Formats: sequence, C-alpha cells, structure tokens
Amino acid sequence: MRMLKCAIMANIIQAVRGTQDYYPEEMAVRSWLYARMRQVSESFGYQEYDGPFLERFELYAAKSGAELVEKQSYVFEDRGGERITLRPELTPTLARMVATRQRQLTYPLRWWSFGPFWRYEKPQKGRTREFFQWNIDMVGEDSPEADAELATIAASFLKTIGLGANEAQILVNNRQLMQAELESLGIAGALRSEVFGLIDRKDKLSAEAWQERGKELGLDAAQMLGVEKLLGNQDLWQKSESLQRFFRAVEAQGAADYVRYAPHIIRGLDYYTGTVFEAWDTAGEFRAIFGGGRYNDLVNAVGGEPVPAVGFAVGNVVISLLLQALGHAPDVSGRAPIYVTVFDDAGLAASLALATELRAAGLKVTSHLQPDKLQKQFKQADRSGAQVVLVLGPDEIAQDMVSVKDLRSGDQRSVSRAQLAAELSKLSA
Amino acid sequence: MRMLKCAIMANIIQAVRGTQDYYPEEMAVRSWLYARMRQVSESFGYQEYDGPFLERFELYAAKSGAELVEKQSYVFEDRGGERITLRPELTPTLARMVATRQRQLTYPLRWWSFGPFWRYEKPQKGRTREFFQWNIDMVGEDSPEADAELATIAASFLKTIGLGANEAQILVNNRQLMQAELESLGIAGALRSEVFGLIDRKDKLSAEAWQERGKELGLDAAQMLGVEKLLGNQDLWQKSESLQRFFRAVEAQGAADYVRYAPHIIRGLDYYTGTVFEAWDTAGEFRAIFGGGRYNDLVNAVGGEPVPAVGFAVGNVVISLLLQALGHAPDVSGRAPIYVTVFDDAGLAASLALATELRAAGLKVTSHLQPDKLQKQFKQADRSGAQVVLVLGPDEIAQDMVSVKDLRSGDQRSVSRAQLAAELSKLSA
Repeated sequence: MRMLKCAIMANIIQAVRGTQDYYPEEMAVRSWLYARMRQVSESFGYQEYDGPFLERFELYAAKSGAELVEKQSYVFEDRGGERITLRPELTPTLARMVATRQRQLTYPLRWWSFGPFWRYEKPQKGRTREFFQWNIDMVGEDSPEADAELATIAASFLKTIGLGANEAQILVNNRQLMQAELESLGIAGALRSEVFGLIDRKDKLSAEAWQERGKELGLDAAQMLGVEKLLGNQDLWQKSESLQRFFRAVEAQGAADYVRYAPHIIRGLDYYTGTVFEAWDTAGEFRAIFGGGRYNDLVNAVGGEPVPAVGFAVGNVVISLLLQALGHAPDVSGRAPIYVTVFDDAGLAASLALATELRAAGLKVTSHLQPDKLQKQFKQADRSGAQVVLVLGPDEIAQDMVSVKDLRSGDQRSVSRAQLAAELSKLSA
Repeated sequence: MRMLKCAIMANIIQAVRGTQDYYPEEMAVRSWLYARMRQVSESFGYQEYDGPFLERFELYAAKSGAELVEKQSYVFEDRGGERITLRPELTPTLARMVATRQRQLTYPLRWWSFGPFWRYEKPQKGRTREFFQWNIDMVGEDSPEADAELATIAASFLKTIGLGANEAQILVNNRQLMQAELESLGIAGALRSEVFGLIDRKDKLSAEAWQERGKELGLDAAQMLGVEKLLGNQDLWQKSESLQRFFRAVEAQGAADYVRYAPHIIRGLDYYTGTVFEAWDTAGEFRAIFGGGRYNDLVNAVGGEPVPAVGFAVGNVVISLLLQALGHAPDVSGRAPIYVTVFDDAGLAASLALATELRAAGLKVTSHLQPDKLQKQFKQADRSGAQVVLVLGPDEIAQDMVSVKDLRSGDQRSVSRAQLAAELSKLSA
C-alpha cells in the first residue's frame, strides 16, 4: 500500500514553489483575517478598492526601489508583446488610479484593499513568493494627525486579532527628522539615501558587516559614530514637531500603548518622505509584521499632479505564523452545523425539502444525498463538522415532527416541524 | 485647463489592456457578489478554499482543452526557468489539491472559492482578460442528486442576487445521453468530441457556417439532420434515468422554476463526463452567465486516483452587467454613516477620542483631522457619504453633550454623551 501511494504521489503534478494551497483549514484563517481587516477599515470610514494584478513594468520602475523591481518582481511579455509585471506591491497601482481620476475624486480618499502579490524571493518561514496583503491608505491629507490615524488603525488591527501591546509594538520614525540629523553629520544628497539603506539593514547584518558597509559608502569614523548615536537616541522624536503632534493624536485615540518611537526604523522602499513605521513582535522571533509610512511624491512620479499620501501594508503569512506561535490562532471552521439524513428512498425528496426549508430560514445545512444506513450517515455528519443531525422517517413525516440528534451529547428528541427552524437557530447562534 | 489636463493624462502610466481598476463603487459590487456567493455556499454546507494563482503549465495541458491552453493562457518562464501559467480556471487546481491529499480528506468534499483568473482573449463587453470567478464543487459523490444539489445552489444564487426565474434560466443536459444518441447516428470515438464541439458552437456560428463545419467533420446529410433533430428535442431527457432523478431532486429543493432541459447544452471544456449545465439570461442579450457539470476523470488525469466530481464557475463580469441592465444593481457604498468634526485646536484630542469611543461601540466613523470651518467640514462629511455629523464644541464638552446633525433632514439636536452610541446604532442599523 505504501509503495502504491508513493508511486501515485510521484505522478501528481506539483504546485509551483513558493505558492500555497489553501485547504479549508488554512483558508478559514485567511478569510478570518480578511474579515478583521474589513471590520477595522470600515470602522474608520475606509472604502474597499482593488487594482489589477497585472501592471506595466514601467509603473514599478518609477519608484519602487531597485531590489524589488530588478530582482524580485515577476516580469514577462504577454502574447501581444507587452511587458507585464505581477504586482509586487499595491502603492504604485493606487498612485496610478488616483492620477487617472485625479480631478473627479473627493479628498481625502480613505481606501483599503486585500489581495495577492508576488515577489520572487527565496521561500522560507514567513515568506512565500505568492502572498496576500492588506493595504490601507489616506490620500490627499498631509498632517501628523493623518499619519496618526493610520498608526491607530494599525494598533486597532493588532488588538482586533488578539495581539496585546505586550506582544506586538508599532515602531515609528520620521525621515525628515532623520534627514536633518544626517545633514548635521555632513551626510546629504545621494549618500543620504544610501545611509537610509544602511540604517534599514542594521538588524539584518552583523555588527562587523554593518561597519564595513558604512566604510564602503565613504562614511568616516566620526560619521559612523554619529549615526550609531542617533540610532540609540530614544528621545530624538522630541526634536520633531510633527512627531510630537503624531504622538498626541495617537494618545487621544487610545492607541499609545501600541505605538512608540524607534530611531532605527527607516523602511526599505525609496518612496517614503516623512513618517515611517513598522510593527514587530516584542519577542523578536519574527520578521516585521508590517510596515508603512508617508509618501507624498508617488502620484506625481507615475504621471499625476502631486498629492500627499500615507498608508501601510500587512502580509498574511507572518501574522498567521505569529498568531499560531502565541496561541491566538482563530477557531474557525465555517462548517454547517446541521446535517439532514435520508431515511429511505421514499423519504429522499422530503429530506431535501426539509433542508431547503431550513436554508430559507437562514441556517447552514448539509444534505445527505442517498439512503445509507443511519449509523454511516451519523458518522459522516460528525466528520463534516456538524453539531446536530436531523432524521425524517415515515413516523416523523406522519406526525409532522423531526428527530433531532445532538452529536456532542448524543441526546435525541422530537421537535415539531413548525418550531424546528427557531430551535435550530438558537443552537447555531 | 482642458489642454493641461490632456497633457497630464498623457503622462500617466496606463493600466494593462483587459484589466479593470476597481474604484470603490465597482469594488462594492464585486464584494457584494462575493458576500452573496459566501452566503449561498455556506448555507449548503460548503467550505471555502483557494489554490495558487500560479500553476505549472502541465496542469492545464492534462485536460483543459486546446483553445484554453494553447491560445488563451498566460504562460511565461520565471527567474528560475520554470514554466508558469496564470490560472485560466480553477478545476485543474482543485483536482491537483485533491490528488495531493487524496487519502487524508473526508468525502464528499463540498468546497467553494472566489478569486482571480486570466485568459488572453479579445477584451469586449462582458469579457476582460483578468476576471473573477466563484467556483463551487462537490468531490467524491457520483449521483444525479449530487448534480441536482449544484444546480439548486446555482438557482439559489440567481434568486439571492435578485434575478427571477423569468430573467435567468439554468439549462441542463447530459453528455452520456448525448453520446448514446450520437452513437445511434453512427458518431463515435474521436468524431464524437468534434461533434460535441460543433454542438457547443451552434449559437456562435451562422446556420450556413455551422452546416459547413459539420460537412468538414465528415458528417453526411442524414447525420446532420439527425443531430439537428436531436437539438430540437426538448423531451430527450426522459430517455435518461439520470436526468429524471436529477429533475426530481431539483423539484424537491424548490428550484424547478429556474432549471430546465436543453438538448443543445454541451459545454466547451474537454473534461466533462455527465451532467452539464449553463445559465443564460432569458432575454438572450448576454453571453452565458455561468456553466459547469460533472467531471469524473480529472483527478486521475492530474495524477491522482479516480474520484467523481461536479461543480460550476460564475464569472463576475457578465453577471454585473446583467444586474445593471435589469435594474438589480445592488445599492452598496460601504461608507461610514458618522462623521466627527473638529471644533477648534483645543478640541482636536476630544474629537478624536469621541470617534474612538464610538468605534469601540461597533460604529463606522470618519474623523475630520483639523479645525476647519464647520461649513467646510459638513460639506466634506456629505461628500464622504455620511448620514450624521457630530460637533463637540466647548459648550458640549462642558455639558457632556454632543450635537448631532442629520445631513438629510438638516435637523440638529443635542444628545447626552452616555446615550450617543445607542442612539447612533439605531440610526445606522
């Protein structure tokens, strides 16, 4: 048997590396996350939107950053010879959509989206090549309070999915502040964005490799020391009026316990212009849970007039692993609690009609479709995840009753047909 | 101005032809459809799942049919040299997933999914290259009652989205029946599947072109006449015990008004083996709304052991156009009904805190983020789709009250802070 199974498995066409099959158990978690994202987004007055999954390569070439565009994106020519990219992120699409209807839209836009993205990276724990992301953005408002709304939404999301402020934190910085500080160290122009990259890699490189990389960029010992001192200064935010207002607005919205300043947060993408933030698990066992920030030049970069924007994106993979690791994985099956059996051939139509009647009353009902032995049907009901099984035999039909068996307790009783839907609604509520 | 706008538009990076931007109004319709699909699927005890959007080319080569695989699918090599296809349909993925866990799964599987698909076709009304599909399948049960459950689900979906039996019909046939009938005309073997293709194209070709095509396939005059007679015989189903049982089960589930026999329904895909069906608008103004059927050989074809299956797929594009044309387009905005203004700088924190309090009570609330003139804020609230606007000035704060302005009636009144959430919940219910 075992050898037979192996022989069969060997012939099965394999899934593409880095993709994920969502069997119902995994899909229930993804859909649960999507529903929580919807709930939080809508509670703050954000509207759902979506862009295409295929975009022109030029869209990303505009601003996404060399690594993402040149190394990680899926690019190919379609049958018409057009150069297509599977979207590696949503923000450039958002910028394109805003630019396309720039004069017709009412600002600020508060928009959110959930969908698939692709990056050709080495698959590993917490990273797949095909993954899902929640994106949420406010477009058309440039203020610390707008940034704070997004950070508050992020905190509200963490809370909604069951992560406490002791388990996950949102770390915030501001690129304008960092730019001013770097300038006072004599780091400006093209070198500044290289040094932003260096700061972003602080946690990813060893101390030696990091120092080495700094020297390669041309930083002298005093500058390296200056940068390191900067990254250790937890009070740096007090120099920024923008961050002061940001933290006041976060506090007013009850999210202060989730949000704190962190001078090493800078983000990898090129297009951020002001506030930036990332969420991390406090135990430090996972990659960043999500990140975002202000990007005021992107609509302009894709051909529109300048319009300020702020937003963030949350992938589904790391967060699912984190919830699992912390014991917060949701208990979701989505299965129908009611199972209608078929007593005999003559009763088939009556059983199908009973299931139809209960569905019309808003209940979730699985129908057995042939007159198997009742024990077999009970077993199948149990494996399907049902809580109660209904039996409609000739006696029940004659008396206008239905037998209701509770699969957990084993109790069985008769309920009148007229009261059945109401009784079962109580049960599955 | 107009010239300026054109100049700007010309610089905006364009969307890929055949894709669709889902601005919030369009997205609301897509999400509304997805929610209805979820509701119907779950009411019949089906669980949500999803496959990858990227699959190996071989998966479709196995059975999807030459047109879909060779002409319409997006195929490319990834950075690792693997030949990838953007999924043009879900059924082969379902078959692969079942084959991969064949011994661990509990049958019958009742699974559904909603997501994107790609086909490189000429974009036209009702057809985009990137589109969304609801797929719903039962795997592991081979009976007319299983087929009838799927047809009943299809009917239930049409009803749920507001299409009456006078507006849309599900037309059913059976390939085994047609095969037997064709055999009695001397049409068998490879010719049979060519003639299935000919039948599928009856509505798409002119009468002359259709006759011509039949001759090309080698059918003689008697055979052509026989086929035509077959396609006019609305009582043919009575010859099939399977279809008799199918219609009895559909009737028992109250769906008979939506489902009827139609001898010309055969479906284009190669893998169907028994019952086949398509939904059409009765006015005949659109392409098929959806289609499906029984496919008992597909799991085997992708490398698993044989397992019977039946299912159907509904695209989002035609159905959205049809709902629009018939005046059934849903009224959905998903916008927050409550808008909290900011009276002055000193009141900013209090207004943000008020919005937070209402969100915690489950309400959908948009926050204004700076102390603009109240008239400007009211106008912005109105454009954002809000129903009521809240004002929290120094007087209101002192008295622990909130001013509530109804944007439709213009009425304004004071409500105590303690009762506010309860009052507003009534309003937005």
